[in-house]
Amino acid sequence: MPALKNDRVIRALLRRPADTTPIWIMRQAGRYLPEYRKVRESAKDFLKLCKTPELAAEVTLQPVRRYPLDAAIVFSDILLIPEAMGLKLKFTDNAGPSFERAITSEAQINSLHEPITEKDMPWLLQSIAWVRRELDGKVPLIGFAGSPWTLAVYMIEGGVSRGFRKIKTLMYQRPDLLKVLLNKLTSAVTECLNSQIKAGAQCVMLFDSWGGILPTTHYLDFSLTPMKKIVAGLVREYRNSRVPCILFTKGGGGWLEAMANSGCDALNLDWTTSIGTARKRVGRRVALQGNLDPDVLTAPDHVVAAEARKIVHDFGEHPGHVFNLGHGIHPSTHPEKVSILVEAVHEAGRKKTPQPSPL
Amino acid sequence: MPALKNDRVIRALLRRPADTTPIWIMRQAGRYLPEYRKVRESAKDFLKLCKTPELAAEVTLQPVRRYPLDAAIVFSDILLIPEAMGLKLKFTDNAGPSFERAITSEAQINSLHEPITEKDMPWLLQSIAWVRRELDGKVPLIGFAGSPWTLAVYMIEGGVSRGFRKIKTLMYQRPDLLKVLLNKLTSAVTECLNSQIKAGAQCVMLFDSWGGILPTTHYLDFSLTPMKKIVAGLVREYRNSRVPCILFTKGGGGWLEAMANSGCDALNLDWTTSIGTARKRVGRRVALQGNLDPDVLTAPDHVVAAEARKIVHDFGEHPGHVFNLGHGIHPSTHPEKVSILVEAVHEAGRKKTPQPSPL
Repeated sequence: MPALKNDRVIRALLRRPADTTPIWIMRQAGRYLPEYRKVRESAKDFLKLCKTPELAAEVTLQPVRRYPLDAAIVFSDILLIPEAMGLKLKFTDNAGPSFERAITSEAQINSLHEPITEKDMPWLLQSIAWVRRELDGKVPLIGFAGSPWTLAVYMIEGGVSRGFRKIKTLMYQRPDLLKVLLNKLTSAVTECLNSQIKAGAQCVMLFDSWGGILPTTHYLDFSLTPMKKIVAGLVREYRNSRVPCILFTKGGGGWLEAMANSGCDALNLDWTTSIGTARKRVGRRVALQGNLDPDVLTAPDHVVAAEARKIVHDFGEHPGHVFNLGHGIHPSTHPEKVSILVEAVHEAGRKKTPQPSPL
Repeated sequence: MPALKNDRVIRALLRRPADTTPIWIMRQAGRYLPEYRKVRESAKDFLKLCKTPELAAEVTLQPVRRYPLDAAIVFSDILLIPEAMGLKLKFTDNAGPSFERAITSEAQINSLHEPITEKDMPWLLQSIAWVRRELDGKVPLIGFAGSPWTLAVYMIEGGVSRGFRKIKTLMYQRPDLLKVLLNKLTSAVTECLNSQIKAGAQCVMLFDSWGGILPTTHYLDFSLTPMKKIVAGLVREYRNSRVPCILFTKGGGGWLEAMANSGCDALNLDWTTSIGTARKRVGRRVALQGNLDPDVLTAPDHVVAAEARKIVHDFGEHPGHVFNLGHGIHPSTHPEKVSILVEAVHEAGRKKTPQPSPL
C-alpha cells in the first residue's frame, strides 16, 4: 500500500499537529453531485449501487476528485448489516429505507443470522480495496457502521420512525430481549468494522443516529455500552498505522464526557453543541469532528465562509479538529457551496495552526 | 375568586416547600381518555372544541376529576395565535395541524394581523373563566402559548416538518426578515398570556417545541431572546398572587444555564437530560418541571412507579420540583398507568419532603 500523502485527518483525529484544519463531509458522495446522480441512475437502485464495487468505488472517489477534501468515506449504508443478518431491505427515494418485515417477535431475534463480512458482504471489502488502489495514498479512506442501538431502532420500527414507540415499548417492557438483539448487533458490527480495516479502511466511524432519543441512564446502558464493546474489540493498529475511531451520537451533546471515556479517539458533534464548549468539557482526551449546521449551505457565500471560520476559531488553538457538517449534506445543496466551505476551512485553519512536527 | 386549596404546584414553581412533589401531565386533557374522545367526537372538529368554551372547559376538567393531579391546564392549541393573525388552520387527526397557505413572502409577513386576545380569541378567555368557576380553588389553572420561534417554524414550514429546511433557509438567508416575524409574534404572545392571566390563569408556560433544532448562537438569538422579552413583559403579580412562568425548550438540555437566566421561575426538562444533573447546573435560580419519558407509561406498573421514584429522588431534597412528563402523553396510553404514576410521585415526594412552612 502506498504511503499517505495527505494525512491531516489522521493527524487531527490522533490530536497531532497538521498544517491546517482538515475537512470531509458526511454524505459527500451523494445526490447533491450531478456526477453521483448519473451513476445512481445507471445502477437503477440504491442497493445495486452499494453492492457493485466498481460503482461504489466510483461514487466514493467523485467528491475527492471535485474538491480538495481531506478524506474519502466508503460508500455503503448502515442497514446493510441488518440485511446481511436476514432482514430484507428496500430503498425508496422519498420515504427512505425500510425493511420488508420489521422484527416483532422473540423468535425473529433468535433466528437472526450472525454475518461474516467476507462471505456475506464481499462487495463492501472489494469496494474498499478498489478505492484504496485508485486513491493511491491521496487521502485516507474512512470505513463505518451504524451503532447497535441505531440498527435495532430501524429493525424494530421497520424503517424511518417519527415517534420511536415500538423500540421504546420493547426497551421498557422487555429490556432483556432488546439486549439479546443488541449483543448480536455488537458482534456483527465489530466483525464488519475489523474486516473493513483489514481491507484498507484507515479510520472507522460509528454512526449512532438515534441515541439522542433516550433518557441518560438508558443511553448509557443501551447505546453507549454496546459501542464501548465495539471500540474495545477493534483492530487499532494495522500495518504499523494507528486506526482512529470516531463516535457520533446525534443529539448526544449532553453525554460528551461519557462518550469521551469510551476508548474512542474522536467524537463527532452535531450542530446543537458549540465546539468551544464541547472542547472545554472533554479536554484533550479526544479529538472533535464537526459541527456546521448543513443548512448553513443555503446561505450566501460570505455567510458560509463566516460560519465555517467561527467553528474553526471556536475550537481553539490545539490540534485535534476535523471539520465536518453536523449531519449529512442535504441533497438540494448547490455543489459550489462545498467549494466555498472547503476553502474557508483550509484558510482559517492555516492562519491559526503552528508548524507541524513530524508524525 | 376562591382561595387555592391545593397550591403545591405554585409553591414548587416558586421554590417554596410543599407537603409532597406535585404532578400534572402535558396533554393531560387528551385522546388517551375515553371521556375526552366522547366530547371530541361530539364537537366534530378540533378547532370547534377549542373555540367552544363549555366544551373546552369540560375537557380541561376531566383529568382533574379522574386523577388527583395538582393542576389543570387550559385546553387550546399553540397555533391559534397564528390563526388569529390571519393564517387559516386545519387539523387532521393523523397528519397533525397545518396551515392552508404557509408564509412564503415578505408581503405576507408584513400583512399579518396583530391580534387582540379579547377580541380575536374571546373563547379562550371565556373558557378560562368557566374552568376557574368550576374548579372553585381545587387546583391552579395553567395558561400557555407557543414560543415565537416555534410558531414561526410552523408558519414558514406550513405545518409539521421533518427537515425544517424552509425556516432554516429563511434564517440563514434573511435573518432580518425572520426577526420582523419574531417581533410580531413576541407582541402577540405577550398580549395573549397577559390576557389569560387576567382571565384567571394562575401560572403560564411557554412551549418552545423546536428551539432544539438550532445551533447555540442561533438558539440564543432567534429563540431565547424573544422568550426573554415575553417574560419581561408578563404580568407577574395578579390579585396579590405571584404568577409563575415556566419555559420549555424541547431538546434544549445544552442551554439550561442561559434559560435559567431568562427571568422565568421554572424550566421544563424533556427526558434526555437527567434532572439531578440539571439541578446541579442551574442551582437554585429556578424550579424544574419534568422529566419522565412518556413511553415509560408502556411499561409494567412496577417499572412505571420505579422510574417515577428515580426522578423524584434524583431531583434531591430541596423544594422546587413539579413532576411531569418530558413531552405530551401518548394517545395510546392506558388511563390506569396515569393513576399508578400520580400515586407513585405523591408517595415518593411525601417520603422525602420536610414539613412545609406557610406560603
